[in-house]
Amino acid sequence: MIRGTYKVILLNSILIDQMIIDLRSDTITKPTPQMLEAMMNASVGDDVYGEDPTVKALEQKAAALFNKEAAMFCASGTMTNQIAIKCFTNPLEEVICDEGAHVYYYEGGGIAFNSAASTRTIKGNRGIFTPQHVLDNINKNDIHHPKTSLVVIENTANRGGGHCWELAEMQAIARTCKENNLFLHLDGARIFNAIIAKGYSTADVGNCFDGISICLSKGLGTPVGSVLLGTHSFIEKAKRIRKVMGGGWRQAGFLAAAGIYALDHHVNRLTEDHQRAKAIEECLQHCGFVKSILPVETNIVVFELIDTVTESVFIAKMKENGVLCSSPGKQQIRFVTHLDFTDEQMDVLLKKLKVIAC
Amino acid sequence: MIRGTYKVILLNSILIDQMIIDLRSDTITKPTPQMLEAMMNASVGDDVYGEDPTVKALEQKAAALFNKEAAMFCASGTMTNQIAIKCFTNPLEEVICDEGAHVYYYEGGGIAFNSAASTRTIKGNRGIFTPQHVLDNINKNDIHHPKTSLVVIENTANRGGGHCWELAEMQAIARTCKENNLFLHLDGARIFNAIIAKGYSTADVGNCFDGISICLSKGLGTPVGSVLLGTHSFIEKAKRIRKVMGGGWRQAGFLAAAGIYALDHHVNRLTEDHQRAKAIEECLQHCGFVKSILPVETNIVVFELIDTVTESVFIAKMKENGVLCSSPGKQQIRFVTHLDFTDEQMDVLLKKLKVIAC
Amino acid sequence: MIRGTYKVILLNSILIDQMIIDLRSDTITKPTPQMLEAMMNASVGDDVYGEDPTVKALEQKAAALFNKEAAMFCASGTMTNQIAIKCFTNPLEEVICDEGAHVYYYEGGGIAFNSAASTRTIKGNRGIFTPQHVLDNINKNDIHHPKTSLVVIENTANRGGGHCWELAEMQAIARTCKENNLFLHLDGARIFNAIIAKGYSTADVGNCFDGISICLSKGLGTPVGSVLLGTHSFIEKAKRIRKVMGGGWRQAGFLAAAGIYALDHHVNRLTEDHQRAKAIEECLQHCGFVKSILPVETNIVVFELIDTVTESVFIAKMKENGVLCSSPGKQQIRFVTHLDFTDEQMDVLLKKLKVIAC
Amino acid sequence: MIRGTYKVILLNSILIDQMIIDLRSDTITKPTPQMLEAMMNASVGDDVYGEDPTVKALEQKAAALFNKEAAMFCASGTMTNQIAIKCFTNPLEEVICDEGAHVYYYEGGGIAFNSAASTRTIKGNRGIFTPQHVLDNINKNDIHHPKTSLVVIENTANRGGGHCWELAEMQAIARTCKENNLFLHLDGARIFNAIIAKGYSTADVGNCFDGISICLSKGLGTPVGSVLLGTHSFIEKAKRIRKVMGGGWRQAGFLAAAGIYALDHHVNRLTEDHQRAKAIEECLQHCGFVKSILPVETNIVVFELIDTVTESVFIAKMKENGVLCSSPGKQQIRFVTHLDFTDEQMDVLLKKLKVIAC
Repeated sequence: MIRGTYKVILLNSILIDQMIIDLRSDTITKPTPQMLEAMMNASVGDDVYGEDPTVKALEQKAAALFNKEAAMFCASGTMTNQIAIKCFTNPLEEVICDEGAHVYYYEGGGIAFNSAASTRTIKGNRGIFTPQHVLDNINKNDIHHPKTSLVVIENTANRGGGHCWELAEMQAIARTCKENNLFLHLDGARIFNAIIAKGYSTADVGNCFDGISICLSKGLGTPVGSVLLGTHSFIEKAKRIRKVMGGGWRQAGFLAAAGIYALDHHVNRLTEDHQRAKAIEECLQHCGFVKSILPVETNIVVFELIDTVTESVFIAKMKENGVLCSSPGKQQIRFVTHLDFTDEQMDVLLKKLKVIAC
Repeated sequence: MIRGTYKVILLNSILIDQMIIDLRSDTITKPTPQMLEAMMNASVGDDVYGEDPTVKALEQKAAALFNKEAAMFCASGTMTNQIAIKCFTNPLEEVICDEGAHVYYYEGGGIAFNSAASTRTIKGNRGIFTPQHVLDNINKNDIHHPKTSLVVIENTANRGGGHCWELAEMQAIARTCKENNLFLHLDGARIFNAIIAKGYSTADVGNCFDGISICLSKGLGTPVGSVLLGTHSFIEKAKRIRKVMGGGWRQAGFLAAAGIYALDHHVNRLTEDHQRAKAIEECLQHCGFVKSILPVETNIVVFELIDTVTESVFIAKMKENGVLCSSPGKQQIRFVTHLDFTDEQMDVLLKKLKVIAC
Repeated sequence: MIRGTYKVILLNSILIDQMIIDLRSDTITKPTPQMLEAMMNASVGDDVYGEDPTVKALEQKAAALFNKEAAMFCASGTMTNQIAIKCFTNPLEEVICDEGAHVYYYEGGGIAFNSAASTRTIKGNRGIFTPQHVLDNINKNDIHHPKTSLVVIENTANRGGGHCWELAEMQAIARTCKENNLFLHLDGARIFNAIIAKGYSTADVGNCFDGISICLSKGLGTPVGSVLLGTHSFIEKAKRIRKVMGGGWRQAGFLAAAGIYALDHHVNRLTEDHQRAKAIEECLQHCGFVKSILPVETNIVVFELIDTVTESVFIAKMKENGVLCSSPGKQQIRFVTHLDFTDEQMDVLLKKLKVIAC
Repeated sequence: MIRGTYKVILLNSILIDQMIIDLRSDTITKPTPQMLEAMMNASVGDDVYGEDPTVKALEQKAAALFNKEAAMFCASGTMTNQIAIKCFTNPLEEVICDEGAHVYYYEGGGIAFNSAASTRTIKGNRGIFTPQHVLDNINKNDIHHPKTSLVVIENTANRGGGHCWELAEMQAIARTCKENNLFLHLDGARIFNAIIAKGYSTADVGNCFDGISICLSKGLGTPVGSVLLGTHSFIEKAKRIRKVMGGGWRQAGFLAAAGIYALDHHVNRLTEDHQRAKAIEECLQHCGFVKSILPVETNIVVFELIDTVTESVFIAKMKENGVLCSSPGKQQIRFVTHLDFTDEQMDVLLKKLKVIAC
């Protein structure tokens, strides 16, 4: 099926220094020269026919990593999450998740839109909740209530400031779900950050969940894509749902090649992102505009501004200083460290934080 | 926002001849070296933030071409079609289309799934229908019926054997829609084939429709992608729907670059595909296994097998001979010519067709 | 649970003759004094708690009649049909029915709205179709197509002019459905008319179908209500769906009592309605404004007007003459005979038909 | 259109004393002889054609009462609520309500099922929340979030123990909604209890809301039905949604007549229910099995059991003593007083509560 492959050499990489430090998200990274070379050397085929060898290789690699049977490469983490939720629920059913969960808070109301399922939100501790939280929110079998059928956890918890679940905490939720006939899905947009920070293995994680979404275009630095993992029958059903959402694509191997490269080369380096985030936290502890900081565990720094400074004023001031950041909520500022955030930028950032007066 | 650009040279392109002639669809093509080079040189950014310059350039180019205000680059034609349908309808409304229309027949039941809208199918003439067909199928304003709100036409009509709409036919439907307060959407998966075959302009086409989906990964030969075109407010609404379907993507500029290249270099060459399809038609007229052939107008050849040969037997026999084809219906066989179908392959195909006995 | 029962006597029934002959539908009937007495003597309870003894009695009676395990009393036939379709399908699936089927044509686009399911319509013979029609419309197992999961037939076929299915025809469809793992639902809005006209039994009918909707407020003459029939597990699921649609009701026994009365006293009398419809057909054969008449089998008369008379003109003329009728389609007029259409009215109607000039 | 009317006299009403005191809900009441007489005397017609004079009279009466333009009579409060939510939202939008709101908690997940809308729940004070709560939960205009479009309040708040909103509290929410372009719907299942308890007028209430659902079959004592109120265009849209949900009904005037009677005769008597509930509260303050009681304001008494008694044990013990009650949550017991709860039953109840030991 393969027409040919292309040998590619990068002769030159001209860095255009725009003096902009972009810490809005780890999604903004661009491929390294090596990743780009891997992309352009990819063998591709029509993935709608299941014939893209690089897509298949990525799917097999990701599934094996998390001890899952099968996988499906998609255009976004929202897509993998929403497909998983549709697979694991029927209309008239209910999903349990934290009130700040990406699947509920940042996916446009997709649980209702794509799955006609209801959502029960938990006020967890920075995105982490307990088996008792789950038990308290399982509906009785009564026609007045939707049937509870799925629990979703997010690790790391973005709105919890990159907070990580302990392995034992995930395992406890998994046991509760099994005992109560609930599916358990992991929104693993930043699961590699948790794995690096906490030291558990991908297989440990995989064994807890019925479905897993991992993202390649955040900390791992690929241009596009997330992978959904689960059983063969789950992925078969997922392909049907992806099709109807328009997520089926053709020669996606160019993007999948970046994913393979990232899994091979960009996981361990997340430590650097975490160290930089930690250093930013330390710096912020001495800044007058900071009221409090969520404990930094991974590559996300979320802090609260003092009452006299609004988030929009602070963001504007940082922008004037060449630093882009975002606000996840009222009075909150978020910095996210990533592959394209260099030591040089780090130095500049720390200097600027120290002199900024709000 | 742009960190850097890469200068890329293709030193070498090793062709692996697999002696397989794949005419199942024009979706199976792979980028030419020149297209791949364009991809590698793309400047990219995070398209979720609206910051990918190449995506934006593609969108502006496509919109301008069809005289539309705005555009949105998506992962597939199913996605652009389904988003358009969701934009143009509300639940409790109805879409009118041909019974063989891709949006109804090949998109997994997406009109009901994504839009909760009902569909009224027309038995057109190889996918082409008339204002009277539309008028006959507009529901009365009565709570027993869904409100008719959208007409979709497909040009070329895939299941009609690549049949083209005349410009006057599209304009007539457009007038009928306007007079009856209906939106009109074009599934232009192969609109460039129609444009080349019929000689009307992209602007002529654009002026007929409220929404247009054009595909870059069929005849135009890019790896992935379709573009949705319409007014600013339509595209704004479409972005919200794309998000909830999980179709938002990050550094999609690598794929968009292929689209820009294709619009610049792969439109006029469709003539070759059409000529080859015409030559296949002529050859088939002398083949004993052929009962009838739909008139060939573009790059699609659909013919009916004689009663004694089933489509699965014929497909298997062709495969043994190194030719892949598909069946769009009972006793029907489809060949689609495309960018990767060469003169050499054409010669081989014609020889094989002449000697095959079923 | 029952507080008390009331003994009721009808002292007097003052007939207000409005000289209006209403043949728009058999839904317009009002309870007879005997039926009203049965209603007012009903023992009732809260049906949401499953405690209305009269509702339960009606459900048991209807289920037994059609040899089904269980039943659920609802406010309308649209509700029982839509609930059945939701029970028998999931999103991404497809329903096969005639293009004029009430579930598709008259229920507001409910298949898409309530079930997110797609519909494949068959051009049957006055609403009747064959196993081959079904087979031709079952989708291949391919992610491009929704999964075919349900066939719905309507007996008598309203838009087919009250056309009845033969028992053997229903049985043939039932076999085809079983062989292809499809559910089969009967929209039996006027199934008693078919039973009376054709002579098969309710159990014969019941044995063909997975789900059955029977209507009590058309030919049977009750004020409100339809009953859904099927297995215990089907009805259990149906109750959940009814709840979310808002169809659960409280002391519905007053209406159920009318249903019990109707099943006991109003089935056999449908013969009279059929005879009157037949007599109208004969009369119409001699009327100058009639172009053609669908063969009358039950209580529905549908005829086509000559080209020079539009349906709105004819309806208006009839209304001037004190006769109400309706139009099911272009140039078509429908008369429906029913419980409140008396011999006196019949005489008047025939006289008027003979003298009307259009 | 009216065939006749029936004069009915109740000769006799044999009370069957079952010695069961049913305080599970105010939905379990049965019509009084006078209400039943009103029902039997109702003039009816086909409400699907808009021709039931009694339904129309009820709708006009209810609309006028709350200073609204139009009304629609439906089979349940779940139906009127769900239709209102569908009218006021589109898919991809979000509803704000209290976490215990009937529309979210007791309607089977209907917001997602019927409207494909997301829900944001507020932890209010026994069901009452403030403008600030609303403001904190309005989503930014960002494609990551559903568009906030509707606020629903419930008065009295069932899960809040029949807690009433002050008029000023409702008016404040109404102002906030107007300022933020949000619709405001009242689930007025027990609005008459609030009106009687707080002394504001129906027009005062009506002026706060875009849509109102009032229930006739709870405190007002009719067998079946709720009424939805709003503008003409809202009710027109609502009728379309009711149709597709199967909620259209025929000669519903029998039930509407009970509603008219109830509005005339059963509103002021709610004071008795409130007094009895208050007396139960006082009694419970001296019962050893009671840990705490939600302040009683209307006809609902909710109390918490001491830790050593579970709700199922308490319910069973009460049932042995001939008293039926329910549990709205863990360790919670609910009594609801109503039209069929007599002084004699009250005496028995108080005696039993005093002697029960758990």
